[in-house]
Amino acid sequence: MSPESSGRRLDAQARRAQLVAAGLELMGSVPVDQLSADDIARATGVSKGLVFHYFPTTRDLQEAILRSATEELLANLIVDPEASHAEQLRLGIEAFISYIEMAPANYLAMARGWGSDTQLGAVFEEARETVVGLVHSVLGVEALPAGLVIALRGWIAFVEEASLQWLAHDRPISRDALVGFMQATALVWLLPEALAIDALR
Amino acid sequence: MSPESSGRRLDAQARRAQLVAAGLELMGSVPVDQLSADDIARATGVSKGLVFHYFPTTRDLQEAILRSATEELLANLIVDPEASHAEQLRLGIEAFISYIEMAPANYLAMARGWGSDTQLGAVFEEARETVVGLVHSVLGVEALPAGLVIALRGWIAFVEEASLQWLAHDRPISRDALVGFMQATALVWLLPEALAIDALR
Repeated sequence: MSPESSGRRLDAQARRAQLVAAGLELMGSVPVDQLSADDIARATGVSKGLVFHYFPTTRDLQEAILRSATEELLANLIVDPEASHAEQLRLGIEAFISYIEMAPANYLAMARGWGSDTQLGAVFEEARETVVGLVHSVLGVEALPAGLVIALRGWIAFVEEASLQWLAHDRPISRDALVGFMQATALVWLLPEALAIDALR
Repeated sequence: MSPESSGRRLDAQARRAQLVAAGLELMGSVPVDQLSADDIARATGVSKGLVFHYFPTTRDLQEAILRSATEELLANLIVDPEASHAEQLRLGIEAFISYIEMAPANYLAMARGWGSDTQLGAVFEEARETVVGLVHSVLGVEALPAGLVIALRGWIAFVEEASLQWLAHDRPISRDALVGFMQATALVWLLPEALAIDALR
């Protein structure tokens, strides 16, 4: 149970965390849906059997790694609740861009690496729904109108894709311009438009 | 070479087209990256060996099917060049939504079924770049500014995701409201904003 556990028998929770941490590092170079128990065993010096003891299937292993990466990202999106809505939005977008700037390959693996596998896809769906929930709680309304949910999910896809394109094209515009662009899409235009389409139903 | 080839030996091109057509039908229920030569053989009554004669690997088979679906979609996006820009945009968006309305499972398979596989992923990248090229030619400018390319790719992701969410939530707003929403994002806001961020570089 002591934190200085290197070189000793690790307890179950610490061992799990060690295996997941190794997976997080590998995600920078290998898409998460291609990570194997072999890769993790090699990176940590444990046996493949031990990896499968903690994660019964390769998908379970991949899901734990993907979930850990996603939790890290979501934790960075939760910003100062005392700030204004516009400021919270800006800080959230900046946290997201900083995250992908630190580890672009990792993010590409996260965003693109799940294929049609439903176990890994569920992690992304949960993360995107968590972002919708965050916006919901920031807005402080009772229920989000259906049109606004569609608009928000579309906006999240827009932010993901625009960030990936920005990286793929070697940051052709400044980081501040990109943040301002995303903030403006949400603030100036997206919310009122989304509310308007609900009124048209 | 005759068109009435059922029940007779098909020539190579017709046989290929028959196998791909069977794959297109199966895409409604099976993600394209999970379609097998077995599935195609069973659906068409030919031997698995014959399928592999035309498509050396399963990925080649999947790619041909995905490419055919994508070409069908892109053909629907090319609309009357005599119409105004706003009208061409509206008609293009309507063609896209009509396409996914006809075969939602097919589109889900297309949009989500490629995973981290680069051979299938390349088909999607080409399709999205073709849409950027279409917009480029409609605008009639010499080169698209880098910020506008980022914005356009982001907007395409937005349109894809918003359409999928609209279907997933059983069309909670009217089709016209959805089309109007997508048209407004592009016209009223996206283009001027994209040009403005380029000016900020």
